[in-house]
Order: sequence, then structure tokens, then C-alpha cells
Amino acid sequence: MSLTLIARVQGFLLLFLGGAMCFPLAVAAVYREAAWQAMLLAAALTIGAGGGCVFICQPTEKQISQREGFVIVAIGWIIASLFGSLPFLLHGCIASFTDAYFETVSGFTTTGATVISYVESLPRTLLFWRSMIQWLGGIGIILFSIAILPMLGIGGMQLYKAEVPGPVIEKIKPRIAETARSLWKVYILLTLAQTLLLMLCGMDVYDALCHTFTTMATGGFSTRNKSVEAFSNPWAELVIIVFMVAAGTNFTLHYRLLHGKVTSLFRDKEFLFYLGVLCAATILLTGSLCTASCEDILRSLRLASFQVASIMTTTGYSTCNFDSWPWFAKFLLLVLMFIGGCAGSTGGGMKCIRIYLLLKQIYRELFCMVHPNAVVALKLGGKPVPENVLRSLTHFIIVYLVIFVVGAAVLSWCGIDLVTALSAVAATLGNVGPGLARVGPYETFAWISVPGKWLLVVLMLLGRLELFTLLLLLLPAFWKK
Amino acid sequence: MSLTLIARVQGFLLLFLGGAMCFPLAVAAVYREAAWQAMLLAAALTIGAGGGCVFICQPTEKQISQREGFVIVAIGWIIASLFGSLPFLLHGCIASFTDAYFETVSGFTTTGATVISYVESLPRTLLFWRSMIQWLGGIGIILFSIAILPMLGIGGMQLYKAEVPGPVIEKIKPRIAETARSLWKVYILLTLAQTLLLMLCGMDVYDALCHTFTTMATGGFSTRNKSVEAFSNPWAELVIIVFMVAAGTNFTLHYRLLHGKVTSLFRDKEFLFYLGVLCAATILLTGSLCTASCEDILRSLRLASFQVASIMTTTGYSTCNFDSWPWFAKFLLLVLMFIGGCAGSTGGGMKCIRIYLLLKQIYRELFCMVHPNAVVALKLGGKPVPENVLRSLTHFIIVYLVIFVVGAAVLSWCGIDLVTALSAVAATLGNVGPGLARVGPYETFAWISVPGKWLLVVLMLLGRLELFTLLLLLLPAFWKK
Repeated sequence: MSLTLIARVQGFLLLFLGGAMCFPLAVAAVYREAAWQAMLLAAALTIGAGGGCVFICQPTEKQISQREGFVIVAIGWIIASLFGSLPFLLHGCIASFTDAYFETVSGFTTTGATVISYVESLPRTLLFWRSMIQWLGGIGIILFSIAILPMLGIGGMQLYKAEVPGPVIEKIKPRIAETARSLWKVYILLTLAQTLLLMLCGMDVYDALCHTFTTMATGGFSTRNKSVEAFSNPWAELVIIVFMVAAGTNFTLHYRLLHGKVTSLFRDKEFLFYLGVLCAATILLTGSLCTASCEDILRSLRLASFQVASIMTTTGYSTCNFDSWPWFAKFLLLVLMFIGGCAGSTGGGMKCIRIYLLLKQIYRELFCMVHPNAVVALKLGGKPVPENVLRSLTHFIIVYLVIFVVGAAVLSWCGIDLVTALSAVAATLGNVGPGLARVGPYETFAWISVPGKWLLVVLMLLGRLELFTLLLLLLPAFWKK
Repeated sequence: MSLTLIARVQGFLLLFLGGAMCFPLAVAAVYREAAWQAMLLAAALTIGAGGGCVFICQPTEKQISQREGFVIVAIGWIIASLFGSLPFLLHGCIASFTDAYFETVSGFTTTGATVISYVESLPRTLLFWRSMIQWLGGIGIILFSIAILPMLGIGGMQLYKAEVPGPVIEKIKPRIAETARSLWKVYILLTLAQTLLLMLCGMDVYDALCHTFTTMATGGFSTRNKSVEAFSNPWAELVIIVFMVAAGTNFTLHYRLLHGKVTSLFRDKEFLFYLGVLCAATILLTGSLCTASCEDILRSLRLASFQVASIMTTTGYSTCNFDSWPWFAKFLLLVLMFIGGCAGSTGGGMKCIRIYLLLKQIYRELFCMVHPNAVVALKLGGKPVPENVLRSLTHFIIVYLVIFVVGAAVLSWCGIDLVTALSAVAATLGNVGPGLARVGPYETFAWISVPGKWLLVVLMLLGRLELFTLLLLLLPAFWKK
């Protein structure tokens, strides 16, 4: 394993990150905020560190091996969060390193869990940077899951290679750069479209841009304490719902849609499953709110559809304090946190494709019990899915649940009640953001103890890196020649 | 499918059950209780119904097919509970049919969840019958899982056939009757041993017998409101711990132990895993109680070891109100409810062997990611486990969790809080008994609505019949020729 090669890649990543830090400087200039000093210093430090790495590390080997790929991806997220937290620390608005790192990891992993109790007290420059971190994390994830994961042949994502046509399958091996470029284009196009639409709904350009950043990334950081509820703007809510759902969709589908292949959208089983769950959950939630809270049906539908889209796509915005909802409604949201968005989207959770294929497997299991001699291949989009791929999909889900249980146990050891502990772990591992009870939408993660916060940081990274990318690095066998 | 054959087998079952109802009559005679009338009438009705079935149904086909086997087992538990609830209904101490059926299903499935708020107000005759139901359910389960499940080739239990030597593998196919007889012997021998030991500890013969019945079945019904706590007898607690652990062990291991094969016990991976989890959980729980509740270490150890053994073997006794424990301790007990005892024991839950093999599979998955070209067969006791068996073990666990989530969602729809709903479903599906919060050890299930109770009845049966036995009957394909 070539450490100099790994360090050089990290150097380029930091150069890019330092460059991105120049955009919030423009915000500081417009609003004449003093935060420009912290921002500029952070940019300088980041570019300096990145430049140093690139200059010093001149590896002899230019080809990145699979194992080096794992290390680069895992360390990349950790280092980016380290430098990304500099503006908060240098400005002093987040004083403790733990809190600043928690907030930045929550940004880059597009989680959206926050330790800032009074968001509106922060300078706009830093709030812009906070939203931008999520946007950068979002595109990072798409590249990671569509371009890098299939190469590494990691847990279930081989399927992806075999299944999804479009820009990926034909071009990924010969030219990663070209795939990356088409996905960038889609991402930027959607970002522009949402910003314009939000401005048409009456939001100012700053709020529109910040919320677009965190919608496209299914991140969920807001510039307001009360999240999207603060705007009381039904049209903006509608736009955000549509773009949250879009951001939770496989980005190769967007690419194909832009090339006029509309039917391919409705032939994609994962997308149909995703839409189906969204609709079913909205109906159930509307019913629950109507019967239990005596809300009228239209208001229930408005609240239910926004919250379902926000939680299932793992964005984490809110338009009400859903922690005061009936128990069934809260439990439903908790379950949606586990399902998450589609593979190849910015959404987190277990991903729809895994749940869909798991349900198909269980049906096959029952069928084979009645017909013991039948050999049934499980198909997706007309093609049989290899058994070893199905196996690793299932194991992913089990490992996800094991980590969930262990995480909740550790949190409850810190004296945190069960509903808070379970939902905090589900919300961080699934990269959602807010949970229930003491980490509900009107609460923050600020009160959690330092060890508890570091646990949640690890969970956010684990969830974002599809568990195995990080777990593998803990295996002694990984480091042996 | 021969309905007359199925009905005839049910008839024999009812004859046997009616015969068993004569034992509580002896208790009524000793304590001169008026409940003998209800008991005698119930016995007469049961024997009458059974005799009628046997007399009327004279099937032409004598051989039981696999599909008929499924139906006989599933319906057997349902019908036995129906007639088993007659004494309670005829006596009037449980007035509603729902409550009486809930209590009896909780008995036959060896769950131990109760709807009786003040147990000590019931006549001893009926309490004896209530305990005896669990004891009968216990032996039913052992026969079902060791003698019948492998024949049906159901979910994961094929493994059983391949793995466990002893009375099963050699003799099961030629002579079920002989296997059944050896297992009966072990069961009765253990029952006698525990009764004698409890009497030596100072319990009277009635309490000793009732508690032995429900210990051997890992059932957990007690003759006292405060369960085993009421006796304040540390030696009796120790005896009960030992026999709970024994009842949660594979009964073929007891059989081999009785034949002098002591080493085979410590070569059995499932048993070692079971002991390991019991010890680890006891240590963790003792630590949690010491630090959080300021109890001294010996008392913490006494409480922790009893509660861990009671919950993990899915017995459900208590020696304290563990619902007032710290959150970590409660969460640990909740997790133990899912693990459960060993396969081929009277314990419920997912069973240790499934968890053990799942963990081995996950380790293999990680190993194969580092060494993509390695082909590693998963071994148990030196023999490779077939991939399809591993697959159905994993799917069992997933289906278990899906049922858990759906069950909890339905309960929360009834307005029940999350901790109560989650623990009530875990405790009934795992055949444990008490849960947390409003179904904690000092509470009952009496306050739950009628639909809620019927849901829990279904969950108890699903858990007891290893899910698939019951789920299969819902499949249209099962009923097609």
C-alpha cells in the first residue's frame, strides 16, 4: 500500500475544498460580515495543507489499487471534515472541537444533525458554508456510490454495475472522469432549477441557495431554527418535497431522463418501490394524524407528505414538531429512517433496492418451502441477480441492524432514554438528522456527552460509507500483504 | 389433503389433553376447592370432543404428508388452546373469551404473558392447570422442533438434522415414537429433580411443582403476583436459574449427558455461544446496576443473573421490578428477548444457533471482501453448512424482525407508547412473557384492547411455530394441488 499515493490524493481533495471555501467569502462581502477573516484563514490553511501534501508526496506508483481505494475514501471523509470544521472553530461560534467536528461530519455525510441550539445567531457566511458542506458531501456521495463503489466491488454494489445502464455501465471502466462530469452536470442543473423555483415562491436568493444545497444533498441543515416551518410557505414546501424526492432518486435515472428516456424511469423497480413506499407512508400518516390529532385532512396531508418525504429521503427538514405526533406516526417515521432513498442518490438509510430485493427473497423462500424441488432465480429488470450479490445485500442489512443495536446500547449506557437513543442512532446511521424525543426536530444534539457525540460521528461515517468501507479497515487481514 | 386424517389427529390430541385435565382434579380434592366442577366439566367436554373426532373420522389414507403435517401442527396449537381455556371460562375467574384464550395461548406457547391482575385470588386448582398447560406446551415444542420440524424440512431446521447427533439423527426417520419416548424421559427426569430440589429449599410441594412446570417449559407463569420474588428465597432462585438454563438448552444434549457423554456438551458450539451470551450479559448488567443504582455488587449479581437467565431463556420470571432499572439494563434485556434459547429446547426467541451462524457469515463476508477470490465454506462442528440452509437461517431472522416491526406499528396505532409496544411485541413473539413499561414485570396485559390482544395471540403462535409453519398456511400456493 503506497502511503504517499494516498496522501497525494488527499492533498488534491484539500485543494478542492480550500477552493470551495472562497464562495462563502463572497457572502461575507455582500452582507459585510466580519466572519470573512475566519473563512479566509481556514481557506488558506486548507489550501496550504493540500498544496503541501501534493508537493511533498510524489508516489512512484500511479495506479490506485482496490485496497488503496478503500483507504482513500474512508480517510477522505474524515480529513475533509477536519478542515471543513476550521471556519467554525476559528470564528469561535462553535467553541469545542468535538462540537465543530460533529457539525461538519453531519454536513459532509449529509446527515443534518446539529449541535447549534440557536442557528439564527450565526453569521450568514458560516451558515452558507454549513449548507455548502452538505452540497459538496452530496456530490461526493454520488461519485462514491456510482463511480467508485462498483469498482471496489463492495457489498451489493456489484449489482449496480450489472443492473443500471446509462452513463455508468458503458463508460465507468474506461473513463471515470467522463461519468463524473455527466453526474456533476445533472447535480448542478437540478441545483439551479430548485434555486430558481424557490425564488419564484418568494424566498430570497440566500435562503433559496442554502436550502437548495441541503435539499439536493438530502442533508437538511437550515438557516432557521424552525427549519422549513419558519417560512410558512406552502409553495416552497411543495418545491422542496419534489426536489427531496428527486435527490433521493438514483442519479443515473436523472441522467437518462435528461436524455429523453422517460419510460426508463417507470421501468426501474427500485424507483417504483421508492415511490410506492412514499405514497403508502403518506396515506398512513395522513390517516393517523386525522384520527388522532383531529387535524383537518388537507393540513394532515400537507404535514404528512412533507415529513414523509423529508425523513424517507433522509433529508431531515421539518415543518412541525413531529415529536408531538401520535406514537404510530412517530414509529412510522422511525421505520422510514431505516429504508432511506435509492442507491446512487444522495439519500442514506439501507437504500430501497436492498429492501426490495430482500422482500423478493423472502417470498421466494416461502415459495420454495411449498415447492421444495423448484429452483427459482431472482430477477431484477428481467435479469437474474447472482446469489452472492443477494447474500451480501442481506448481510448488509443485518450488519446495519447490529450496529444500530450496539449504538443504541452504548447511548443508553450514558443514561439516555430508549426512544431518544434508538432514534438518535437511527437518524445518524441513516444520515437523516433529527430523531425523536430529546433529539426531536425542535431539539439539538448539543446536550449529548462528548463520548456520545463521538459515537454518533462514527455512526454517521459508517452509514455514509456503506458500513463495509469503514469496517474493512478494522480487519487485520486487510492490512496484511 | 385429507381433512378427516387431520381431524383424527386433533381428536387424539384432545383425548390426551382431556386426560391431563384430571391432574388438577387431584389438586382440587386435596385443597377441597369448588373449582373441581369447572375442571371436570372441561375434561368431559374435551374428552367428548376428542372421542367424537376419533370415532367419526376414519380416514382411508394413514400416511401423513408434509403439507398435512404443517396443518396438523398449526391447528393443533390453536385447538388445544381453545379447549385448554375451558376451565377458566367455566369457572368464571376469567370472564371474557378473549382474555381466557390469550391466557391459554400464552400458556401453551410457554410465553407467560398474563391478563390476570391478581393471580393469588384464583383457586389453586386453576393455577395448577395454568402451570400444567405450560409444561404440556413445553414437551409439545420439544417434540415439534426435534422430531417434526426436521421431517418437514422447515426453515433452517434441516441443519438440525445434519448437525445434532444423539437420539435424533439415527432414529428419527425410522421411529418417531422412540425419539419421543427418550425425550419424554429426559423431560420428566428434569422435572422430578427440580421439584425435589425446590422442596429441599423450603417450598411446599404445590408451589414447587407449579414453578417446576413453568421453569422446564421456560414459561414463567407463577402462583404469586410478584413471581419468584414473593418467596425471597436465594437458594430457590439459584435452583430456578440452573433449571431455566437447562430448559433453554437443546434437549438432545441432555439426552447425551444422561448417557455419560459429558464432553459432547462442551463441543456443541451453540451451547457454548448460549453460555457465553448469558455470562457476558450478566456481567454487563451487574456493572450497569452497580454504577447506576448504587446497589452493592453481590445483590446486583444476584438480581442480574436471575433476570438475564429468565429473559434470555424466555422464561419470564422476575425477582424485582426490572422496569425501574437504568435504560441500558432494560435495553439489554430487550435484546436478550430476541436471542432466546437454543434450538430443540423449550426456549423461544430467534434461537442461539441462528445468531451464531449469522455472526460467522458476516465475518466470512468481510473476509471475502479482502480476499475476493477466496471460497470459504462455513463449518459447524467440523462439517460445512450448506448455503441454502444458511440462507434460510438469515431469512428467518429478517422475517422475525419484519413481523416485530409490523406488530409494534399496529400496537402503536392503538395509542400504545413505543417502549411498551416494542417490548410487548418482542416479549410475545419471543415467547418471553413480561416486557417493559406498561407491560413490565409488575404489570399485566389486561389493559390492552381486544384487537391488541388478538394481535399478541397471533404473535405468540407465530413465534412458537417458528414463523414459517404458520406463514405458509397463508400462501395460496400451499393450498393448490
